[in-house]
Amino acid sequence: MMPDRANNRAADTLRTFLLERNVPGAAAGKVLVRAGSTTVLCTASIENQVPPWLEGRGKGWVTAEYNMLPGSTSPRKQRDRSGKVDGRSSEIQRLIGRSLRGIVDLAALGERTITVDCDVLEADGGTRTASISGGYVALAEAIGSLPEFQSGQLPFTDSIAAVSVGIVDGEPLLDLDYSEDVRADVDMNVVMTGRGRFVEVQGSGEEATFDKAQLLAMIDLAERGITQLSQFQAKHLEH
Amino acid sequence: MMPDRANNRAADTLRTFLLERNVPGAAAGKVLVRAGSTTVLCTASIENQVPPWLEGRGKGWVTAEYNMLPGSTSPRKQRDRSGKVDGRSSEIQRLIGRSLRGIVDLAALGERTITVDCDVLEADGGTRTASISGGYVALAEAIGSLPEFQSGQLPFTDSIAAVSVGIVDGEPLLDLDYSEDVRADVDMNVVMTGRGRFVEVQGSGEEATFDKAQLLAMIDLAERGITQLSQFQAKHLEH
Amino acid sequence: MMPDRANNRAADTLRTFLLERNVPGAAAGKVLVRAGSTTVLCTASIENQVPPWLEGRGKGWVTAEYNMLPGSTSPRKQRDRSGKVDGRSSEIQRLIGRSLRGIVDLAALGERTITVDCDVLEADGGTRTASISGGYVALAEAIGSLPEFQSGQLPFTDSIAAVSVGIVDGEPLLDLDYSEDVRADVDMNVVMTGRGRFVEVQGSGEEATFDKAQLLAMIDLAERGITQLSQFQAKHLEH
Amino acid sequence: MMPDRANNRAADTLRTFLLERNVPGAAAGKVLVRAGSTTVLCTASIENQVPPWLEGRGKGWVTAEYNMLPGSTSPRKQRDRSGKVDGRSSEIQRLIGRSLRGIVDLAALGERTITVDCDVLEADGGTRTASISGGYVALAEAIGSLPEFQSGQLPFTDSIAAVSVGIVDGEPLLDLDYSEDVRADVDMNVVMTGRGRFVEVQGSGEEATFDKAQLLAMIDLAERGITQLSQFQAKHLEH
Amino acid sequence: MMPDRANNRAADTLRTFLLERNVPGAAAGKVLVRAGSTTVLCTASIENQVPPWLEGRGKGWVTAEYNMLPGSTSPRKQRDRSGKVDGRSSEIQRLIGRSLRGIVDLAALGERTITVDCDVLEADGGTRTASISGGYVALAEAIGSLPEFQSGQLPFTDSIAAVSVGIVDGEPLLDLDYSEDVRADVDMNVVMTGRGRFVEVQGSGEEATFDKAQLLAMIDLAERGITQLSQFQAKHLEH
Amino acid sequence: MMPDRANNRAADTLRTFLLERNVPGAAAGKVLVRAGSTTVLCTASIENQVPPWLEGRGKGWVTAEYNMLPGSTSPRKQRDRSGKVDGRSSEIQRLIGRSLRGIVDLAALGERTITVDCDVLEADGGTRTASISGGYVALAEAIGSLPEFQSGQLPFTDSIAAVSVGIVDGEPLLDLDYSEDVRADVDMNVVMTGRGRFVEVQGSGEEATFDKAQLLAMIDLAERGITQLSQFQAKHLEH
Repeated sequence: MMPDRANNRAADTLRTFLLERNVPGAAAGKVLVRAGSTTVLCTASIENQVPPWLEGRGKGWVTAEYNMLPGSTSPRKQRDRSGKVDGRSSEIQRLIGRSLRGIVDLAALGERTITVDCDVLEADGGTRTASISGGYVALAEAIGSLPEFQSGQLPFTDSIAAVSVGIVDGEPLLDLDYSEDVRADVDMNVVMTGRGRFVEVQGSGEEATFDKAQLLAMIDLAERGITQLSQFQAKHLEH
Repeated sequence: MMPDRANNRAADTLRTFLLERNVPGAAAGKVLVRAGSTTVLCTASIENQVPPWLEGRGKGWVTAEYNMLPGSTSPRKQRDRSGKVDGRSSEIQRLIGRSLRGIVDLAALGERTITVDCDVLEADGGTRTASISGGYVALAEAIGSLPEFQSGQLPFTDSIAAVSVGIVDGEPLLDLDYSEDVRADVDMNVVMTGRGRFVEVQGSGEEATFDKAQLLAMIDLAERGITQLSQFQAKHLEH
Repeated sequence: MMPDRANNRAADTLRTFLLERNVPGAAAGKVLVRAGSTTVLCTASIENQVPPWLEGRGKGWVTAEYNMLPGSTSPRKQRDRSGKVDGRSSEIQRLIGRSLRGIVDLAALGERTITVDCDVLEADGGTRTASISGGYVALAEAIGSLPEFQSGQLPFTDSIAAVSVGIVDGEPLLDLDYSEDVRADVDMNVVMTGRGRFVEVQGSGEEATFDKAQLLAMIDLAERGITQLSQFQAKHLEH
Repeated sequence: MMPDRANNRAADTLRTFLLERNVPGAAAGKVLVRAGSTTVLCTASIENQVPPWLEGRGKGWVTAEYNMLPGSTSPRKQRDRSGKVDGRSSEIQRLIGRSLRGIVDLAALGERTITVDCDVLEADGGTRTASISGGYVALAEAIGSLPEFQSGQLPFTDSIAAVSVGIVDGEPLLDLDYSEDVRADVDMNVVMTGRGRFVEVQGSGEEATFDKAQLLAMIDLAERGITQLSQFQAKHLEH
Repeated sequence: MMPDRANNRAADTLRTFLLERNVPGAAAGKVLVRAGSTTVLCTASIENQVPPWLEGRGKGWVTAEYNMLPGSTSPRKQRDRSGKVDGRSSEIQRLIGRSLRGIVDLAALGERTITVDCDVLEADGGTRTASISGGYVALAEAIGSLPEFQSGQLPFTDSIAAVSVGIVDGEPLLDLDYSEDVRADVDMNVVMTGRGRFVEVQGSGEEATFDKAQLLAMIDLAERGITQLSQFQAKHLEH
Repeated sequence: MMPDRANNRAADTLRTFLLERNVPGAAAGKVLVRAGSTTVLCTASIENQVPPWLEGRGKGWVTAEYNMLPGSTSPRKQRDRSGKVDGRSSEIQRLIGRSLRGIVDLAALGERTITVDCDVLEADGGTRTASISGGYVALAEAIGSLPEFQSGQLPFTDSIAAVSVGIVDGEPLLDLDYSEDVRADVDMNVVMTGRGRFVEVQGSGEEATFDKAQLLAMIDLAERGITQLSQFQAKHLEH
């Protein structure tokens, strides 16, 4: 039986997806991305050097940081100021960085580092995938501000977007909100390019398992959702 | 000689001041405050307990945290994740917390903690004073959401707002932006209530000194600016 | 073209897999697991309490810690003593813990915590999957030492094992060693139960992408490998 | 009504102020400063390099560290060894450093760093202002030990001293001891030069406010106290 | 050949040893101890509770902390504020605590913790042994301030003192100063009671070895020195 | 009265001592050392640089790290990941490093650092002394793998081994196991070379004292034990 979704959303339908540019900030690229109530500020800052282990190879680097603001959840999320390991944030920011590097021609970037910061203003499920979808747009904006790329020909091999899928009450659902995420037996995050190639597939059952048919159904849903997100990104970057 | 100010601003004129409510977030109170380009997201979260040293005294607590997002400056501001002391942030958030407590009837609040988080989205001077002026509005909104205060009679003894003043090229100026702040010989932050009483006066010469006439001139400018900010806050909270 | 593998190993063949019990240590469960040269000491320690957030619910907890000993790599791996976030270790130990919890009946365990420590003695690729395959055996041994489970009827819903697969020179390969891992365009870790259900699927292209056919081929290889590992574990635990 | 003060001290009278030189230590400058029972060991150490951000500019640097010894208070003050932010100490040492830099000709100092360490042996109110008044003497002693300044012509534009003032039971009082500090509605620290120019004015009401007349009265008291402290310092440095 | 010692000191002669009481501070016990130029402020603070692992056993605890003030050495000693392990300080404070506990009847102390803080004001060799010899006096003073011990009958099984010995240029020397310590092939710290029993013997050759005759000679010298220190302590505590 | 020892061991008899080479790991030297149930994995890793303070002096460095694996004790030993000071580990690894440096010709080693890692797999008393005895063999193996030392002529001035002794029920005992260590009034660790010279002597009474006769008896026992351990090492390294 199909679980009820907020706003009578169908199992294979995305939440309302919005990209807002010209938001406050001093970074070269900045975009506010929303998927339903989930809201992430993505900024992309350029630095004219690379990490020590990459120096002298004429190649650039793209990395990401992920952070939830205290007011993004209720009860309030404590700040990660203690220097202790917050495993979840670390895992998410590594995923975002890896995903974005999957479509950037780092050699064409030259010896620069671009840091994509994803600060969650409101968390209602899918913050990591929204960060990737929005982070790509901020990254494009930042790279487009560099002198050699102002013509608009960006050093991307493809575009990139991401979405979550999951199994709730036995049914595969696209783009889970927080209330669905909590009830899900399996949660999968999929990152794909605009041309339909996979960059990351991360499916986990927390105290649960899934069979191959469910795995394939989740992948199909994700493909469908990412196709729409990629088209939305492309339209948005035209302007 | 009077220094040139952006937009031909007079020495005693505030930057455009804006308060935006209904912004993204899950906190009980939330407001985006802008003073010129300086932009701070203030959220106020309520927790039904107090710090251990205050337990059992039937009194509440108001505290603040201040943080600059990485994209708020160019070059990018590194996150404060190392557990090391960032003296400036610590000093600022102590000031914000102390200022807000100056006008709250903590006994009327009951055994609750309200944390006012001030996350700077864009930093163009005056982020700490904007945090106080905006933090007051977020705090009012949060307290107004509590059952016993929904009538609108909030446990405040007064309202509170803040502004920076300084001496640039020998002239006292109101509400410095970043380019002025950098050139200033003396920088002073003043926190006052809506009824014109002082809560904090913090003036420092960095590798410079000032005389009593300059001290008094700065205080006069601050009084003028805070009067306007207080009126603006009051109007805003009426709606 | 099929890449050369050490010892003429075929694309779909596992490395020599060994489980050694009765190794030094004071933990309730302990096993040394080897996959080729990769060697991990897995110990499972029982504590008669659960984390604070689980107290009073009559349920147990299984968690894992992963660590590479300094001598496990050349050059030497620095110890993670600084309190800084080592994202990779954090991510791996969360995966191991989640995987093991996927097949344990935590309610049957009672209010106990079992910590499975995976200390890598030699790292030649696939340390996280070897940790899961070996960690399951250590966990079984530890639980079997508890009075109520000494009959041999353990509170498992299934067994669990894991393997890595990847795309090297365009070819899907099973159970990559370090030299293959370095050359791989895509790296995927798959965790499955003895009855063939998925617990985790984590595939990533680092600066690369993959298509659906490759995704399916990797999943098929992983299924084949895990079937053999599960049989090996079962035989081993009979004795 | 005027509050009773220990030893029948008048509202505008300083506590007994002492400077002791030739105290134990290996630093170039060292002085024990006492204001009533408050006792601070100020040492000034010279290093022949400057912080990285100042290198190559031919200019020196003066910085300060502030610390309370465990036995300086009862109950015992825990050491600040955890790497956590102790906001108060950080704020105080920034104030001391800024104040001392206000009267040093850093260019004349050459590429040297002088660190003024203020370790509180007994805390009875006013430790930060005593640190500034004593730190100046230690700094003078350290600079006077440098070859180019042994003539006695030190690279100071002025001398510097500090005192606290406050409002207790509605009355402005000079140089609060701990028992007065605890009862004060407003606490203000003022730093001034020997020629009567202001370097820092920091007044705060903790859960209280003050009006302009009180602000001016406190500033007047501070001026009176600092004039005496400056004369005392000058006499002391003659010998 | 006998090495030259400062002030023509003989191989078996202690440096000038001084104990000064009534020094600044708020702790129950406080003493300034000097051995030559080495100067340590020892304070002993009493807290009416014990560490968690000792609760409910009706027994007290004595612990120590050791710290070198920045101005105690030239060049300046950096403060240990980073939260990193400073192995040497940790080792020394464990030695001081263990030594003092060696002569205290912890059961007679009741459920109290006494923390003996040893803050080095000037470091010229032998700071850890001076800390023990002075710490004992501060501890006696603190315990003597407790109501049940004001009669003067302290819960000590013996007194305790310590001294360093070493081999310099092949010769055993008593009570090394810093210049001797640097040249020493072997450095030994000995802690003994007033009645001549050993509590700690710690001898190390840094990149050197020693034979049994040298070991015995060093122990003999230490016994001689500690006998004198114990007499000095006893006389001092009479007053 | 002589205390009972496990396996009817005499007061002056060592536990079964084993050295196992060809254990898993990627380090240049690696050995598993056992003394009774106590088991330590010692690996020695070579790096072609020295610590900054030793650069350019043509001299090498030998250092050690000591760590207990979580499964080495029951209850489980928590990992030292917090960045906090674990005084005991720090003290032990300083002892191991100092001991090994006592017999290495650091100049002959050239500008290399060898790190000897001692990871305890099972802790039954005497882990620090086993680490030294085994660490020497791992170090010899690592140095022997360097081109200039493959002839077998190693840059050692002597061999080194260590053992613990103690006073249990008034009797001096050699090589304490954990159950004896817990009951011991005095615990002493002795490090000696193969030629019978002392490198370290560390005896402590925890809440106890000892007389000179006991001190000498313990030293005699230690000499006897270390003679046997040295012979065992020598035989082992011949092969």
